[in-house]
Amino acid sequence: MPEINSPTDAIVKVAKTTICGTDLHILKGDVPTCTPGRILGHEGVGVITQVGAGVTTFKPGDRVLISCITACGRCEYCRRGMYSHCTTGGWILGNEIDGTQAEYVRIPHADTSLYRLPEGIDEEALVMLSDILPTGFECGVLNGKIAPGSSVAIVGAGPIGLAALLTAQFYSPAEIIVIDLDDNRLGVARQFGATATINANVCNAADVVMEITGGRGVDAAIEAVGVPASFITCENIVAPGGTIANVGVHGVKVDLHLERLWSQNISITTRLVDTVTTPMLLKTVVAGKLDPKKLITHRFKLGHILDAYETFSKAADTHALKVIIEA
Amino acid sequence: MPEINSPTDAIVKVAKTTICGTDLHILKGDVPTCTPGRILGHEGVGVITQVGAGVTTFKPGDRVLISCITACGRCEYCRRGMYSHCTTGGWILGNEIDGTQAEYVRIPHADTSLYRLPEGIDEEALVMLSDILPTGFECGVLNGKIAPGSSVAIVGAGPIGLAALLTAQFYSPAEIIVIDLDDNRLGVARQFGATATINANVCNAADVVMEITGGRGVDAAIEAVGVPASFITCENIVAPGGTIANVGVHGVKVDLHLERLWSQNISITTRLVDTVTTPMLLKTVVAGKLDPKKLITHRFKLGHILDAYETFSKAADTHALKVIIEA
Amino acid sequence: MPEINSPTDAIVKVAKTTICGTDLHILKGDVPTCTPGRILGHEGVGVITQVGAGVTTFKPGDRVLISCITACGRCEYCRRGMYSHCTTGGWILGNEIDGTQAEYVRIPHADTSLYRLPEGIDEEALVMLSDILPTGFECGVLNGKIAPGSSVAIVGAGPIGLAALLTAQFYSPAEIIVIDLDDNRLGVARQFGATATINANVCNAADVVMEITGGRGVDAAIEAVGVPASFITCENIVAPGGTIANVGVHGVKVDLHLERLWSQNISITTRLVDTVTTPMLLKTVVAGKLDPKKLITHRFKLGHILDAYETFSKAADTHALKVIIEA
Amino acid sequence: MPEINSPTDAIVKVAKTTICGTDLHILKGDVPTCTPGRILGHEGVGVITQVGAGVTTFKPGDRVLISCITACGRCEYCRRGMYSHCTTGGWILGNEIDGTQAEYVRIPHADTSLYRLPEGIDEEALVMLSDILPTGFECGVLNGKIAPGSSVAIVGAGPIGLAALLTAQFYSPAEIIVIDLDDNRLGVARQFGATATINANVCNAADVVMEITGGRGVDAAIEAVGVPASFITCENIVAPGGTIANVGVHGVKVDLHLERLWSQNISITTRLVDTVTTPMLLKTVVAGKLDPKKLITHRFKLGHILDAYETFSKAADTHALKVIIEA
Repeated sequence: MPEINSPTDAIVKVAKTTICGTDLHILKGDVPTCTPGRILGHEGVGVITQVGAGVTTFKPGDRVLISCITACGRCEYCRRGMYSHCTTGGWILGNEIDGTQAEYVRIPHADTSLYRLPEGIDEEALVMLSDILPTGFECGVLNGKIAPGSSVAIVGAGPIGLAALLTAQFYSPAEIIVIDLDDNRLGVARQFGATATINANVCNAADVVMEITGGRGVDAAIEAVGVPASFITCENIVAPGGTIANVGVHGVKVDLHLERLWSQNISITTRLVDTVTTPMLLKTVVAGKLDPKKLITHRFKLGHILDAYETFSKAADTHALKVIIEA
Repeated sequence: MPEINSPTDAIVKVAKTTICGTDLHILKGDVPTCTPGRILGHEGVGVITQVGAGVTTFKPGDRVLISCITACGRCEYCRRGMYSHCTTGGWILGNEIDGTQAEYVRIPHADTSLYRLPEGIDEEALVMLSDILPTGFECGVLNGKIAPGSSVAIVGAGPIGLAALLTAQFYSPAEIIVIDLDDNRLGVARQFGATATINANVCNAADVVMEITGGRGVDAAIEAVGVPASFITCENIVAPGGTIANVGVHGVKVDLHLERLWSQNISITTRLVDTVTTPMLLKTVVAGKLDPKKLITHRFKLGHILDAYETFSKAADTHALKVIIEA
Repeated sequence: MPEINSPTDAIVKVAKTTICGTDLHILKGDVPTCTPGRILGHEGVGVITQVGAGVTTFKPGDRVLISCITACGRCEYCRRGMYSHCTTGGWILGNEIDGTQAEYVRIPHADTSLYRLPEGIDEEALVMLSDILPTGFECGVLNGKIAPGSSVAIVGAGPIGLAALLTAQFYSPAEIIVIDLDDNRLGVARQFGATATINANVCNAADVVMEITGGRGVDAAIEAVGVPASFITCENIVAPGGTIANVGVHGVKVDLHLERLWSQNISITTRLVDTVTTPMLLKTVVAGKLDPKKLITHRFKLGHILDAYETFSKAADTHALKVIIEA
Repeated sequence: MPEINSPTDAIVKVAKTTICGTDLHILKGDVPTCTPGRILGHEGVGVITQVGAGVTTFKPGDRVLISCITACGRCEYCRRGMYSHCTTGGWILGNEIDGTQAEYVRIPHADTSLYRLPEGIDEEALVMLSDILPTGFECGVLNGKIAPGSSVAIVGAGPIGLAALLTAQFYSPAEIIVIDLDDNRLGVARQFGATATINANVCNAADVVMEITGGRGVDAAIEAVGVPASFITCENIVAPGGTIANVGVHGVKVDLHLERLWSQNISITTRLVDTVTTPMLLKTVVAGKLDPKKLITHRFKLGHILDAYETFSKAADTHALKVIIEA
């Protein structure tokens, strides 16, 4: 049972949480900051049961969304809206401190790391706003500067790529081409609004994108996988003046073909999600402009969390996108 | 003697021109679009002697600055201010068509590729506005989003790096650290306003930058060399939330360390100069905010152009920055 | 029959044109730059029959959209994308030179004042892109900085207000409240996507907006009428940090309540449409993100243009929005 | 002696404070939120003597700059960087709560309303960063979008206008024209970098500005007085595409000549200072890009504060700009 350690902490009784691809990386030992015995999970909604003396925004009984990013709201990075690099926060939940895949969780810097739930919205939909939707939106859509009439390609149709696909439509691009290796996910992408899909197993994805765009390439290429091959695809399809918005978590370096790209007036962006757009995303959900529930494919009780992990980790077979874990 | 080929052409009698590092690349055979026998040169000032029927902005006798970039002002790229990718222009002068290192030059799309010279400004100073100053400013300073109080590092103190150094000061950054291998050029950089200089031959430049910036890195790292080592230095010194603004012309790919940078919220930009800021730069010269003559070290008559090339190509010995060639 | 006067002119055989509210102002004598005997009309599509020697983008036979704004693409304003203030263009068509309500029209600066029609799109839909849609979009939506989740009020549900309403939805705002005095037009606004409508004849519109927005006001208040009362409504409903985007053509000054607004961190913008977004809007039409035909209520032959004026000028009775006049 | 009321409070022993024009307004009864008996003052530097349980950034003994704006860092406005409209802060110091013209002051939301003093900078210089420099910079310079080569007019050469003048030079504008009625202040403006000054008592200021700018007007007109006449001057001199950045505190409405300005593509901005740029301004002072001491003309001991008020309120005679009051 977590306890208040600092006057800015709150304790939240977790109502619903989920599993992130990053949790699987941790289990494989890929995240050295996360030590054995750590409770995982950095997403969820719940009810506040206790607050420290310095918490002014919330009180016990408040229903809240837990952000995957902990932000003090005071340091230089937080003041610039770069919560991901908060000097006493950032991504620590379910990593450097115990996370949300539990009955209760301690949330540091509660005033600026929790968000009041809007009335009348399904709680499980809002779990998608802890991480996946702000990640797709901030790292992919905003960094990609998607605009009315623009052309977009999303490389990777996993949950993050699909989150980028859903939120890209806020800006009415003319084309959203989604590339993946899994026909099921490409089918989901078409249902979610992709104007074209490409299975990179059966053709050269870059060639097809260039054909679709009349040889010009795309204004925004969103990398949502995290491996060199998909980043190289982005290098091959970005139009002059366009942007490669990296969302994927990379484990190795990639080749940057500056011998061609130096004169192409492009931008490449990277970003760990800041969750600064959470208030905006909450408004779009309330207004019915975004339906996060589309991303949820399975539901489990907390007692069956191992089944949830099994289902989520075998997504090719189970067709899992996001799995909800209920208290 | 060049002739009007198209109603939008003008013929300019060249008064002063100069040599660009790119001209040396052409002579080595590095620029395949430039065929043997081509007259080089894409910089200069002169007097219009003839205009085509469609030219409305200029008339014979007008004194003009020649932009290194030819822009039709009509295509989709030109309308977006991306003259570098003009579908019938871009960098063609002294490359795909004969250039300015001659008595006369034909300038296509004259209305949007020439600029009237302001009164009372030394002509040779304005030659620096054909290419080098807009290149340093657009590709380095503007792409680097330099702001009051920010920290900047410029890797490379050749003419382009120095042009970035001069124009970076338009925005009052707190620190401008210049890195090079040549002590003479670093001395020039200090005279031109660098707050610190580092000779990368005698220390690890990235380590020194991190020390100067208290371990934080720089908000803007401007690459003004065009080789992998200097780009890697930029990767090592860019602060979270910062920008690597590439100016250098690269001949080979570089390693992009996304395994570290994916979470650093950085931007990497590339750009072939558009010369859209030429009107702004002319105003800063007229107002005395920028003194382009500082970049000029040597002067030659057109008849001695081979000496000019010799002097410019042996810059380490001659300490040449920009050499003026007069008619 | 108009003739080529300048090498940059083109002659267009008008296929379809329309009437603008401004044409009615001219007939009343409100536009002193427009002298008696002038052929009116600054909107339309047609086919090029002749081009001057300096025209490089188009040739006879090309089907084109005529922009209401004539842009040379060369002057300082055009280079900044402010075509409305082109030193040899701007709004001159059907004002200082003969316009499009004719069989043929001369278009100066043809290369940068005409746009090739995309294939497969109904011509009459594209007539809406000559003026009304770029006006609503640039002056109202872009200046209003409409963003996902934001709240918008549009004061005035005439054709321009409705054009702002249609294009505001490119950015997925949470609320678009439309205010007018005409219940028919408010009904149209609801069909076009307004989330709430207010008849200012039957209540205090500002009070209702404040109630809808929980006392906060709107992020963007778009003035699409052009009278003091509607501008004052905007002053009363703009939230701290918000924008009043003026679209209306005003004949008299208005009271600006700086004694209250000085501390409200607001912006007020004015704009004569530049039509710089025409390429973007064409893409959104081709992509099916915008259906301009919704704005067309009546159709007439050119021979019956007086009936068209009658219908358009009595919009309260005829429920006319835009009327198409066909050759 | 103030006491900690809330866990986010700090108590600061004031070392140096100053008087603002607003304090004079309060004494005249113009600020209804400020009740009789209130200790005035919203500027100053000092040493923390006590902190509440929730304060994590500062501890007793820390030397700090007091911001005129109190910001919780948590509410929707603070998260958007609009601290001026903080729902539990904003401008309350020396207004709704006791201020800094005292030995000690209570600072609510201390973590986000105080700034650590940089080493080696004169304390009295930093007092200028509490209000006047961020006000001139944010409301005038940033809102005015001042850029290299642009033309600026500042109407009003009081302390705020001069603060705008000093910080405008961060961006290297070509022209800064300062207008006032007082020749002494215009002389100071010239010393501080004005490229031209106009005494509006002896000529029509707008006419002179139009003459200086070749009939074009200025890109940015900064209103730093707060009366209708000076705002009207701004309306008369703003160029098409330009901005009127209001800084002045207005007591009555002004005429907005939309019958002329509707088509001029201008912006008008208002702003109560947010002090979000305080960290940036501190860096520019440390880097020697800004010398705030220039604004200080007189110094008094706290025991002689009435003399300080006398001197400051009779600025025309005493030539006072800012007066320092020392503990």
